[in-house]
Amino acid sequence: MTVKVGVIGTGWIGAEHIRRITTSIGGAEVVAATDIDADRAARAVEGTGARVLADGTEVIAADDVDAVVVTSWGPAHAESVLAAIAEGKPVFCEKPLATTAEDAQRILDAEQRHGSRLVQVGFMRRFDAGYVQMKEVVSSGGIGAPLMAHCVHRNPTVPETYHSEMAAQDTAVHEIDVMRWLLDDEISAVQVITPRPTGNRFEHLRDPQFMLFEMAGGARVDLEVFVNCRYGYEIGCEVVGEEGTVRLPEIPGVVVRNSGHRSTPVPQDWTTRFAAAFDAEFEAWVREVAAGTPTTGPNAWDGYAATVVTDAAVRSLHSGGVVETGIKDRPAFYA
Amino acid sequence: MTVKVGVIGTGWIGAEHIRRITTSIGGAEVVAATDIDADRAARAVEGTGARVLADGTEVIAADDVDAVVVTSWGPAHAESVLAAIAEGKPVFCEKPLATTAEDAQRILDAEQRHGSRLVQVGFMRRFDAGYVQMKEVVSSGGIGAPLMAHCVHRNPTVPETYHSEMAAQDTAVHEIDVMRWLLDDEISAVQVITPRPTGNRFEHLRDPQFMLFEMAGGARVDLEVFVNCRYGYEIGCEVVGEEGTVRLPEIPGVVVRNSGHRSTPVPQDWTTRFAAAFDAEFEAWVREVAAGTPTTGPNAWDGYAATVVTDAAVRSLHSGGVVETGIKDRPAFYA
Amino acid sequence: MTVKVGVIGTGWIGAEHIRRITTSIGGAEVVAATDIDADRAARAVEGTGARVLADGTEVIAADDVDAVVVTSWGPAHAESVLAAIAEGKPVFCEKPLATTAEDAQRILDAEQRHGSRLVQVGFMRRFDAGYVQMKEVVSSGGIGAPLMAHCVHRNPTVPETYHSEMAAQDTAVHEIDVMRWLLDDEISAVQVITPRPTGNRFEHLRDPQFMLFEMAGGARVDLEVFVNCRYGYEIGCEVVGEEGTVRLPEIPGVVVRNSGHRSTPVPQDWTTRFAAAFDAEFEAWVREVAAGTPTTGPNAWDGYAATVVTDAAVRSLHSGGVVETGIKDRPAFYA
Amino acid sequence: MTVKVGVIGTGWIGAEHIRRITTSIGGAEVVAATDIDADRAARAVEGTGARVLADGTEVIAADDVDAVVVTSWGPAHAESVLAAIAEGKPVFCEKPLATTAEDAQRILDAEQRHGSRLVQVGFMRRFDAGYVQMKEVVSSGGIGAPLMAHCVHRNPTVPETYHSEMAAQDTAVHEIDVMRWLLDDEISAVQVITPRPTGNRFEHLRDPQFMLFEMAGGARVDLEVFVNCRYGYEIGCEVVGEEGTVRLPEIPGVVVRNSGHRSTPVPQDWTTRFAAAFDAEFEAWVREVAAGTPTTGPNAWDGYAATVVTDAAVRSLHSGGVVETGIKDRPAFYA
Repeated sequence: MTVKVGVIGTGWIGAEHIRRITTSIGGAEVVAATDIDADRAARAVEGTGARVLADGTEVIAADDVDAVVVTSWGPAHAESVLAAIAEGKPVFCEKPLATTAEDAQRILDAEQRHGSRLVQVGFMRRFDAGYVQMKEVVSSGGIGAPLMAHCVHRNPTVPETYHSEMAAQDTAVHEIDVMRWLLDDEISAVQVITPRPTGNRFEHLRDPQFMLFEMAGGARVDLEVFVNCRYGYEIGCEVVGEEGTVRLPEIPGVVVRNSGHRSTPVPQDWTTRFAAAFDAEFEAWVREVAAGTPTTGPNAWDGYAATVVTDAAVRSLHSGGVVETGIKDRPAFYA
Repeated sequence: MTVKVGVIGTGWIGAEHIRRITTSIGGAEVVAATDIDADRAARAVEGTGARVLADGTEVIAADDVDAVVVTSWGPAHAESVLAAIAEGKPVFCEKPLATTAEDAQRILDAEQRHGSRLVQVGFMRRFDAGYVQMKEVVSSGGIGAPLMAHCVHRNPTVPETYHSEMAAQDTAVHEIDVMRWLLDDEISAVQVITPRPTGNRFEHLRDPQFMLFEMAGGARVDLEVFVNCRYGYEIGCEVVGEEGTVRLPEIPGVVVRNSGHRSTPVPQDWTTRFAAAFDAEFEAWVREVAAGTPTTGPNAWDGYAATVVTDAAVRSLHSGGVVETGIKDRPAFYA
Repeated sequence: MTVKVGVIGTGWIGAEHIRRITTSIGGAEVVAATDIDADRAARAVEGTGARVLADGTEVIAADDVDAVVVTSWGPAHAESVLAAIAEGKPVFCEKPLATTAEDAQRILDAEQRHGSRLVQVGFMRRFDAGYVQMKEVVSSGGIGAPLMAHCVHRNPTVPETYHSEMAAQDTAVHEIDVMRWLLDDEISAVQVITPRPTGNRFEHLRDPQFMLFEMAGGARVDLEVFVNCRYGYEIGCEVVGEEGTVRLPEIPGVVVRNSGHRSTPVPQDWTTRFAAAFDAEFEAWVREVAAGTPTTGPNAWDGYAATVVTDAAVRSLHSGGVVETGIKDRPAFYA
Repeated sequence: MTVKVGVIGTGWIGAEHIRRITTSIGGAEVVAATDIDADRAARAVEGTGARVLADGTEVIAADDVDAVVVTSWGPAHAESVLAAIAEGKPVFCEKPLATTAEDAQRILDAEQRHGSRLVQVGFMRRFDAGYVQMKEVVSSGGIGAPLMAHCVHRNPTVPETYHSEMAAQDTAVHEIDVMRWLLDDEISAVQVITPRPTGNRFEHLRDPQFMLFEMAGGARVDLEVFVNCRYGYEIGCEVVGEEGTVRLPEIPGVVVRNSGHRSTPVPQDWTTRFAAAFDAEFEAWVREVAAGTPTTGPNAWDGYAATVVTDAAVRSLHSGGVVETGIKDRPAFYA
């Protein structure tokens, strides 16, 4: 069975997902798409055979749409996800699931009323080969019980539209999800520390930021977010346990020896760095949707948790102090 | 346009390519397949919608088959490739293109008579990210003119059916192709040296073997083939130039620190090691077939050269001495 | 000229320094030693030709003692250092220079009254090849202005006598010194965070500890201190600047490939890890003492700063909050 | 006891060893030196207190000379070593022990007549931490029985006086010794292959050279000698055994991330690369001489074997073919 996908929002990431479903994975095709800019939608589906519809409601309702991909702008995500749930269709939503805890809660409520899980959130790192290996090591007890983790998240540069709160909302949100998953625990408190800012940034931006997370079980996670690091895109992660540590591999590259050095190129953007993870994420989603079973990737609860923790990080950025996330207990539905 | 593919031979690698075309890449579907064991063919296409045909002739002739994948056993390759050329259909042939230089020559002749290139040979390493980076470094002059290259090709173990000549025919053939490509030169002579054999092998097998290749331009390539190395599957390559060297990256894996060591898992088989390369190989082939242009991957000339060099290596294995490959001049058609 | 050294305190580290001066470096010899346990002193100088004296006062006063090494227990350091200054003799004092800020201040005062620098403190990391390379990169502007640094300091285990305050006093004190030196800045504030403790420790010990340092110029340094990490002794450090980062090399070791992994042994103790640094430290000190010029290693001001910051870290361990170090302005004498 | 050393030959390496004995290690002092250029000898011992004598005979005979270091030019080594044996004094001889097999044989004969071992040859690699670890792994069976080894020996450049035979005599001689030691076997045959030469060399020089060694037990060793590699000084070695492999560590250096790369400086000369090995070599020699026991470093037999194999390599360079070394059986005296 080929899964027929409708896409809501055809900006950069939406167009990329259309390309991916069409070219880089098998088992699915895009049959409908929409965007607030209809021309942009038309360009995004060119050559795929998909049609452009008026809005997300039409996409979700279309008879030949088996499953929905939501890649509109963040504040519009929750409405589309709720509509897909109402229609009983599997929905893949790019992060964030919702921009407010209230909206995220409405999704949790709706999905539980529906009675089975329909929502997957686009935290692709859980499908990255390196993180998958880390998860296996941690889960198998290879390093004992986790006590700490050290993370870095670096971009070479960001556009002027990137503002200080996005360090949590757009950037750290990936570590927030992946550390919850790796440590199998919720984040109970956050603190954002602001080192002396780099000169290589737009004036309004606080960069770098150093974030501390306290897990409910007492482990601590620290994270450097540095989005104007200049040299490249790099993600680092080490989990420290009672018996040892496990570290994310560095991205491989040829080793060139010349001019007195041995050197290796560093990826320059996240699309290169996580290309295989995006492919694996969609392959798994399509396979599970085709099988008619709930998808096993990050779910609505994970989306809710990310929103709650991100909010706390933004409050800490402004206050400078430790902020409790106040995350609720996870319903058994999401166990 | 979706490329409709017919597959001849559904043993392990054929079944794997059917799975890959169906699941892991987009833009193509398998519509027909055949195998000397019809049941095996039926199992290989289960769930894909493809039909099983009586033999390769039927597959190649089928109206809805746009392009052919040849994954039968080696001695049968040439016949299928020649038939596909006769039909004017693009054909992807797993290595070897032919098991004799004469058969390879017949393919070169047929393709030139046809007037445009139709044949691609399954040397997937040219699509491996590490080798691609190496090629860019060498081509751009980053290490100066190449003088030497050091290669290792290790398998953890091989079955009893693997015999001493296969070290050249099945194993070293990958380095033979990739070194011709990296150094942009033909191999003029070969010598196979046989170190003391490992005890961890079937009695009949000469393992390891150490091979020396002389390029037409005077560069030298050495290659350790060790197919019972026990610890894992590993490919190593360093090209040494007048100004520096470039080395294939080691396969990344998590770094675990415990019990007094830091350690990283090594891949155990080539399907894992080259999974992304196989995907990239087929994505490119499908894209180029769909575009109606000659494919730019390894072509029939590369298949011919590999056969000629492999033959020389086998003769050297038996004689112990240096064997000239006697490779012809490359026709302008393959420039 | 051979520098004649008197050693005060012949416990483990004192005996090790006697051995080092006698065997591993040239240009110096131990001529006198003392210890509260005279037998221990006798054993420590066995075979060196040095004589055992009654106490530190006698050692410092001895006519044939050119320079003094203080390796008694910490609370006794200040008195010996002050006596050596009074005698006008160069003195190498193991860390800590003093256990209270008041004692450290008395040494600063005495040395300034003396009019030239006589004191070197045993922070050997400044002589480690890796840190020396880091310093060159940072100083030369190779990574731009420093903004952050991430450090880890891990021991496989510690004896029962090691208590929670020693994480700052004995362990973090090395990073406190080396980060002041690398970043060329003073530490203005400290915070100690206590993750869930490991089970592999004596009950009274808080381990691991995570320390945050704020530099006067706004850069931030974080440090994991984990003295029961089990797997080995390891020191990590990365300085992040506006244009790039520089990282301490991992300690080299053979790479063994077997049983599905490639692995490298990790040093198990700091004497192995820093053996070459200790040699270089003493070679430089002896050479400078022989030359009659003030030694250029870490001086009394560095010792004072370490004491002040360590005190602040201990207070933060107890309070959990951020503690200002209240470090004074550096006198021009120590510029 | 301080070992009193006489040095014969105060060129670059002789002066360096005088400095090393005086400054970098303990337990020894230079008391006498000689050189064909008396002024050069005077400069080399300046500040050490040693006196300059007329010739090697005087140095060896001097009452206060306990042990002799021979660092004259190669063809003069044998005479000095024979004289030291005649005097019954321990002698450390820089490589080569002798420039002809006949001279080496005379030393073996003389030493056996003397009745105990007096000679150590300056193959410092056996004291390099990386090679020591490799030896432990191989000896402990960690990789099973050795089958192959791959070596590289690269210098950034060489002076015009360096000629093609020196690739074996001066450069490969280090691998010849260390591989005999690592594999615990003699070299029975050699072949030198000459790839297309680099353009970055003096016209008369054949560079690079690729050498193949056959061990008596059937293992094979290959070695790239490339003395104009431009980028730095680098030594590589991997031993491949029946159960795994062990590889010499790369020389550590800071990892700098900037300008799109992560890079590490490579040492530029062998004095830096092997500084710690030279120190360890002399510390061990001095300690063993002081103890009055035969030194356990590379002995006269090792010096003989290196000369025999080097000769064979030179013959192969000229003939292009495989040359048997014709090495004799090792006398029990050297077991």
